[in-house]
Amino acid sequence: MAVKRVAAAFFPPIALDARAKAPLYRQVYDWFRQAILDGRLRPGQRVPSTRNLAADLEISRIPVASAYEQLQAEGYFETFVGAGTCVARSIPDEISKPTTGPAAQRAPSARSSRQEDDRDGAPRRISRRAVAMHTEPQSWLDNMGAFRVSLPALDHFPVEIWSKLVNRHSRRQSRTAMAYGTAMGYLPFREAVAEYLATVRAVRCDASQILVTTGSQQALQLSAQVLLNSGDRVWIEEPGYHGARHALMTAGARLVPVPVDREGLNVAEGIRRARAARAVYITPSHQYPLGVTMSATRRMLLLQWAARRGAWILEDDYDSEYRFGGRPIASLQGLDTGARVIYAGTFNKVVFPSLRLGYVVVPRDLINAFSTARDATDVFSSTLYQAVMTDFILEGHFARHIRRMRMLYAERRGALVTAIKKILPGIMEVVGAEAGMHLATLLPRGVNDVAVAKKAARLGVSAQPLSSCYAKMPQRGGLILGYGGTDAGQIEEGLRKLRLCI
Amino acid sequence: MAVKRVAAAFFPPIALDARAKAPLYRQVYDWFRQAILDGRLRPGQRVPSTRNLAADLEISRIPVASAYEQLQAEGYFETFVGAGTCVARSIPDEISKPTTGPAAQRAPSARSSRQEDDRDGAPRRISRRAVAMHTEPQSWLDNMGAFRVSLPALDHFPVEIWSKLVNRHSRRQSRTAMAYGTAMGYLPFREAVAEYLATVRAVRCDASQILVTTGSQQALQLSAQVLLNSGDRVWIEEPGYHGARHALMTAGARLVPVPVDREGLNVAEGIRRARAARAVYITPSHQYPLGVTMSATRRMLLLQWAARRGAWILEDDYDSEYRFGGRPIASLQGLDTGARVIYAGTFNKVVFPSLRLGYVVVPRDLINAFSTARDATDVFSSTLYQAVMTDFILEGHFARHIRRMRMLYAERRGALVTAIKKILPGIMEVVGAEAGMHLATLLPRGVNDVAVAKKAARLGVSAQPLSSCYAKMPQRGGLILGYGGTDAGQIEEGLRKLRLCI
Repeated sequence: MAVKRVAAAFFPPIALDARAKAPLYRQVYDWFRQAILDGRLRPGQRVPSTRNLAADLEISRIPVASAYEQLQAEGYFETFVGAGTCVARSIPDEISKPTTGPAAQRAPSARSSRQEDDRDGAPRRISRRAVAMHTEPQSWLDNMGAFRVSLPALDHFPVEIWSKLVNRHSRRQSRTAMAYGTAMGYLPFREAVAEYLATVRAVRCDASQILVTTGSQQALQLSAQVLLNSGDRVWIEEPGYHGARHALMTAGARLVPVPVDREGLNVAEGIRRARAARAVYITPSHQYPLGVTMSATRRMLLLQWAARRGAWILEDDYDSEYRFGGRPIASLQGLDTGARVIYAGTFNKVVFPSLRLGYVVVPRDLINAFSTARDATDVFSSTLYQAVMTDFILEGHFARHIRRMRMLYAERRGALVTAIKKILPGIMEVVGAEAGMHLATLLPRGVNDVAVAKKAARLGVSAQPLSSCYAKMPQRGGLILGYGGTDAGQIEEGLRKLRLCI
Repeated sequence: MAVKRVAAAFFPPIALDARAKAPLYRQVYDWFRQAILDGRLRPGQRVPSTRNLAADLEISRIPVASAYEQLQAEGYFETFVGAGTCVARSIPDEISKPTTGPAAQRAPSARSSRQEDDRDGAPRRISRRAVAMHTEPQSWLDNMGAFRVSLPALDHFPVEIWSKLVNRHSRRQSRTAMAYGTAMGYLPFREAVAEYLATVRAVRCDASQILVTTGSQQALQLSAQVLLNSGDRVWIEEPGYHGARHALMTAGARLVPVPVDREGLNVAEGIRRARAARAVYITPSHQYPLGVTMSATRRMLLLQWAARRGAWILEDDYDSEYRFGGRPIASLQGLDTGARVIYAGTFNKVVFPSLRLGYVVVPRDLINAFSTARDATDVFSSTLYQAVMTDFILEGHFARHIRRMRMLYAERRGALVTAIKKILPGIMEVVGAEAGMHLATLLPRGVNDVAVAKKAARLGVSAQPLSSCYAKMPQRGGLILGYGGTDAGQIEEGLRKLRLCI
């Protein structure tokens, strides 16, 4: 191979800075690399020997040699025995041209935070599902003020007990606890969850069916991945939980809103709208956001439909821990003899949101498919909190905490209902069952609930507009008021601020 | 509405057990619920009054009343003023028939762990992507014995320092740290990551572009979600990283294997096979599994192709921390002036696998789309370890740990290469650069590497077959030997066991 080179030996104008953070070799390396990328050095161009360059720069030869070695390892330089070193001739000419063309104009520093332009200002192409999931900013989530939905009473959490358990597991961290866990989760935790669900929620399962997730969102997202093809139709509750819509959309599902009435999701209407749907997403114990409990009749109709059509039921057992009137309602999963129900739940709202622990109870024949999907998505859940939560449950702290919170939330709900009657009489109407950590309210016809929520957010109040839970604009708007993390003092003040906004 | 009922008042044969774990009200409730589900009680059938049933059962009226209240709340019973209580007439007949039909045969207790039958023994319908991702059991992952890939030297991790930091953050856990975090991650952590990547990996970014993930797997999965439509073609390295294939498949991508040679991925061959591909997945610093470093020429050709076609480059900067010969190689992202590179990395292999912390560096115009995708997938990463890792980096423990591990792994690699020459001369051939935590080896033609790996797993050795990284069966098999978590003693013993298996 004949080595063809452009004329040799210039001395590059490298300005070294002995006091710079970057070591000398790095400064030399950076200069050459940038010069090649900028097109100041051309492919095939000869560079000085390390000895000559070191002499010219008045530094030791070692940093220069290190830089050359690196440049060669990365393919910027090539060396021929007896012929010295030159810029690699295989570097594409176009890239090494001076960057004054469009590429330079699109350089990171010139970019705005808007979608990048490919040409003519059009946004760059991303996936259809990502475009479909685009949402307006939800300013009511910007603060943790009064009425923030799903926020528990964090100041009542037994932080000391928890941190003792954390410390216990962190200090004696075993090799196993530090290494890779399994996609299904930490076995002792799965056993504790299975027992809890069987006892408290009448879920029929054993530990082998429990897949530990980071919360109900991931449980739904994995279910969608495993069960739905792009374009499959899925019934969702109207109104319903926003997060579930997005989880289903990650699998490309087409959503079919089915109205919720006083008995829960209207199954007959669902059949009328999309008999052949592949799945339904449902919150039967405590419908989000209206708080309805699904009737036994509707439950059975739903199971019947699913069995006949081979459809899947994604049961989100939302807020089932907190029921103030009567006993907790048994799960739909426990009624199902055809293993059509995938049951999802979370500890994030009962313990604290940054815990990131939930679960999905998977029919036996789907365990492998779910486990593979979890592995493909994010491999497995961090072990530490799984171990801590196991102890928290087995040592009785969890049951005690739920009992105390149930009393506290019943009180807060009572205070909120009373205060609404006092401060917003005839303006705000309470709907829904006596359960959970939030209540839904209706506003008078014609009041724009999104506008109210935006104004309220500016006053530090975090009320969610009811219309944000609808696929189609409802006849009446409303506000969803979380009271879990909102104490008596905040309640009255928050309602007064809301009155200003309505 | 005329109330039509079947004849009244039988006394149900409820067998109460005063010593049972379930309270009396629950036993009464369970009996009725099961009787309705089994069809022993028919819709419209009258049930005794609470007073009469309590007298018959010789218990107080309170548990009976509680049970009735619950059954009514759940819609199993209905009550008419003056007409007593009966089984809800709206309960579907079919469900309430005795369960001797196919539904009963499919009851959970009768199920095997195989895929559930819909009819005629066929597996039940799940998504095409879930079917496509089905994998054979990888028995070499069943143990944490010698040569387990990606396992670091856990016994050299500074557990005491780490647990002190954990304790610090757990004890003084603020309300903010317990509440919902943001989809992008904990800001101080993102700032530390941005600085680390800019300094050590020549990544051009600021903290606003860092999305905290649970590892590189999630980084890839989110990238696929945001960037790819179902059916889009994506170049992957052949051989390549198994986990990346699955991450791309979650978005329904069609994978186009492109061969890797001594300069890394063959860009010209990629263009020949699928010029219009939407994206490429690549490990340029240290190719997995072969250990090649992508040459500067190929890097520029790749950037050129991506800029021309509007394609995305998913750069997985795998094991970039550990390079024993020469300096670390600069990232591809840092060369990119068109913001076409999405850069993914992880702390899970440098710190410990159950940490579950990684990151993806997102072009500015895609930040919203990535943030929405993370929110839809699993909302956000647990806060505790993000805070702990921030301190671990800022207080210098991280850099110190990497330095120590780099020396240790260089030593272990040396010992492994020496031992291979001694124990398996002419049988096992080492390939790849001096970097990372594993090395790839080739076996003689005709040796089935999967069979070897399976046999080895039974002896407690965790060698991964090289052919498992190929889409098409390669001409020569081999073994990937992790040495990160394998000490000198295990190396020789492990190789001797492998010799038995070959």
